[in-house]
Amino acid sequence: LEESRDSDVEDLVEGLHEADTADLLEILGRDERYRLMEVIGAGFDPEILPYLDETIREEIVEWLGPKGIAKLVQELDSDDAVELVQDLDEDLRMHILAALPQAYRRVIEESLSYPEDSAGRLMQREIVAVPSVWTIGETIDYMRVSDNLPDDFYDIFVVDPRHHPVGFIPASRVMRARRHVRLDEVMDDDMRIIPLELDQEDVAHMFRQYGLISAPVVEASGRLVGVITVDDVVDVIDEEAGDDLMKMGGVSEPDLYEDVTDTTKARFTWLGVNLLTAVLASIVISLFDATIEKVVALAVLMPIVASMGGNAGTQTLTVAVRSLAMKDLSEANAARFVGKELIIGIINGFLFAILTGVVTWLWFDQAALALVIGAAMVINMVVAGLCGTLIPLGLEKFEIDPAVASSVFLTTVTDVIGFFAFLGLAAIFLL
Amino acid sequence: LEESRDSDVEDLVEGLHEADTADLLEILGRDERYRLMEVIGAGFDPEILPYLDETIREEIVEWLGPKGIAKLVQELDSDDAVELVQDLDEDLRMHILAALPQAYRRVIEESLSYPEDSAGRLMQREIVAVPSVWTIGETIDYMRVSDNLPDDFYDIFVVDPRHHPVGFIPASRVMRARRHVRLDEVMDDDMRIIPLELDQEDVAHMFRQYGLISAPVVEASGRLVGVITVDDVVDVIDEEAGDDLMKMGGVSEPDLYEDVTDTTKARFTWLGVNLLTAVLASIVISLFDATIEKVVALAVLMPIVASMGGNAGTQTLTVAVRSLAMKDLSEANAARFVGKELIIGIINGFLFAILTGVVTWLWFDQAALALVIGAAMVINMVVAGLCGTLIPLGLEKFEIDPAVASSVFLTTVTDVIGFFAFLGLAAIFLL
Repeated sequence: LEESRDSDVEDLVEGLHEADTADLLEILGRDERYRLMEVIGAGFDPEILPYLDETIREEIVEWLGPKGIAKLVQELDSDDAVELVQDLDEDLRMHILAALPQAYRRVIEESLSYPEDSAGRLMQREIVAVPSVWTIGETIDYMRVSDNLPDDFYDIFVVDPRHHPVGFIPASRVMRARRHVRLDEVMDDDMRIIPLELDQEDVAHMFRQYGLISAPVVEASGRLVGVITVDDVVDVIDEEAGDDLMKMGGVSEPDLYEDVTDTTKARFTWLGVNLLTAVLASIVISLFDATIEKVVALAVLMPIVASMGGNAGTQTLTVAVRSLAMKDLSEANAARFVGKELIIGIINGFLFAILTGVVTWLWFDQAALALVIGAAMVINMVVAGLCGTLIPLGLEKFEIDPAVASSVFLTTVTDVIGFFAFLGLAAIFLL
Repeated sequence: LEESRDSDVEDLVEGLHEADTADLLEILGRDERYRLMEVIGAGFDPEILPYLDETIREEIVEWLGPKGIAKLVQELDSDDAVELVQDLDEDLRMHILAALPQAYRRVIEESLSYPEDSAGRLMQREIVAVPSVWTIGETIDYMRVSDNLPDDFYDIFVVDPRHHPVGFIPASRVMRARRHVRLDEVMDDDMRIIPLELDQEDVAHMFRQYGLISAPVVEASGRLVGVITVDDVVDVIDEEAGDDLMKMGGVSEPDLYEDVTDTTKARFTWLGVNLLTAVLASIVISLFDATIEKVVALAVLMPIVASMGGNAGTQTLTVAVRSLAMKDLSEANAARFVGKELIIGIINGFLFAILTGVVTWLWFDQAALALVIGAAMVINMVVAGLCGTLIPLGLEKFEIDPAVASSVFLTTVTDVIGFFAFLGLAAIFLL
């Protein structure tokens, strides 16, 4: 591809949707990427930027330089511009802001003043708001002449004299209504209003819960200041869902495109925590080294107990973390959930106690050893069921993200209890 | 709540959005749920049904009976009706379909004939399609009189005489254009068209990739047959993201509201597979029981090697599974990804080899043991990095879902290699 003539490449890129050009830039190696940027040159479409992965975007932004970026930023909608600028480092951000026209710069700066991951950052400032006393005809005429509106929009917001939103009308309904009808006769006043400071996770939940397409954002006084549309929320939903998966796997989000050094560092921290918990489990084992020396079968079998507990706990934990994220699990049904997982732990504990007991008996021909591993299995799987529910619920209560911290706690507990129960029972009954 | 008077409860429910009523029904215990349904009775809003979790929805559907459901189904949009009916068992579905009016029944049956999880199932049959030769004025007049249209819509699709989609116009643009303008002058012809059979995961990817609000669905001949809107896609994105998380944690999706028996059964299967792999690891250990008998410190330390390998592999695996799901990882950049993970495995392998080596040396005061555990650590973490990438890529190639099967394979490999490397090296160098 990269060996062909520049003009061919140029033609190819021109035919692509911005999202596809973004993908192309991401998939290439660094050198090829610079090469492609040179070919595209001044024809670079600013709409490509919002589609790029953060790490790659930074690279491209650096390549373009502050002047070049500032020119491109102006062509973006305010929400895309804010998203782009907020991730840049202090210095570069200042340079870009300084190069923007006064009015546009104020809008961006105001958006940046809202907390990260809040509705204020997510919203678009270009809104279609009309007074409730207008008729459909007046509204349409206004929209035909006004050139300060977004290109396309889904809902028209109806405001009272204080600029508080009182209802909305889907564009399709405006189009179909008669000209003389007053807006407040056809508007829908069952509307979900989003406060500026609402966390983007809660915004996503509202959109999902009520199947919204767009929703008005208001400041503390109730004044309409912006609008959030469902396409921005799709990104948030993706991000949050991916976040939970990544956190539970012990990785930070923008991992794929990060360079080796950054990725290694991020992974190292998590593995370091894991090393500590593994050493803790080893200390428990070392308490029973005399027992293991006499019955070496214990060393052979002990990983089974720990591993089954860990996996049973992870199952429960996964359901808890996902249900908490989707707000399906709350204090109202927490007790029922814990109870259910406890019963499952008991049932599966006994079933696997029998299975492992039989395997152990056949393998080592020692009935006592089979009983010990069975008992340890029941204990560990019940503990796993309890901890798999109580740890995430507890962390959520203290407002710690259960997706990050739960699995370390959980496997530490199931390892320690697993080894302790199995080796402890063995020390009592086998010696 | 449930002790108060019926009329109060009725008032409360009436004031709720359908999505909130659905949540209320989900959060209640079974008995309270039936009680609430009795209070709501005939006032039950069919719009509540699409918001309910599958398990709870089945319960409510049974409670309502086929006649009751058939009446409610008619009030739903075709896509919601299909979603509701497709999950019911054969018998009940037949009964409900039989009770529907002929025309509506044909629409539902046709949708049900498309493969599950395809665009055909997801789409809505009510579309706004107008010929390209019309003017804006004709279009508006048609929409004012036609009562066969969806209540609200976002895009109007422009079709040629063969009913193939040739472009679209956002409703807001129709509203702002002059009456005499022809549709093909203002329409956008850079449109993403979705084939009927496309998998819903790919549909979601298209919406995400191009920031779509709605997209036309066509049958093989190219005829426009339906439309998919972003709110349906939000559900799919949620579902798919949750699916991957759940599968990697070894649980099936609709778990929270399932009863104990079903959940226990589903979890049992996964734990059974895990037991087999744990036994495999035990067999590896048993090969070295003579070595362990002589150096009991090996039994104390061996879980550390296995656990670090497992965790490092899970990190890599998580990135791979997520990137594959988001289509960020493909054959074009697979080699680069594997290479990167290999390097990370080598770097972190050496770092943790030094760390564990030092800990071992301080703990057991045996330099040889420290060297053995260090070497085993490097081997296992490099293997983890390789398997964490190659296993999911291989499964994807054979069209097996990497989220389900990868982690069993991976931990089996890291356990077996971890124990084998550590105990094998010990047998060679420590005896």
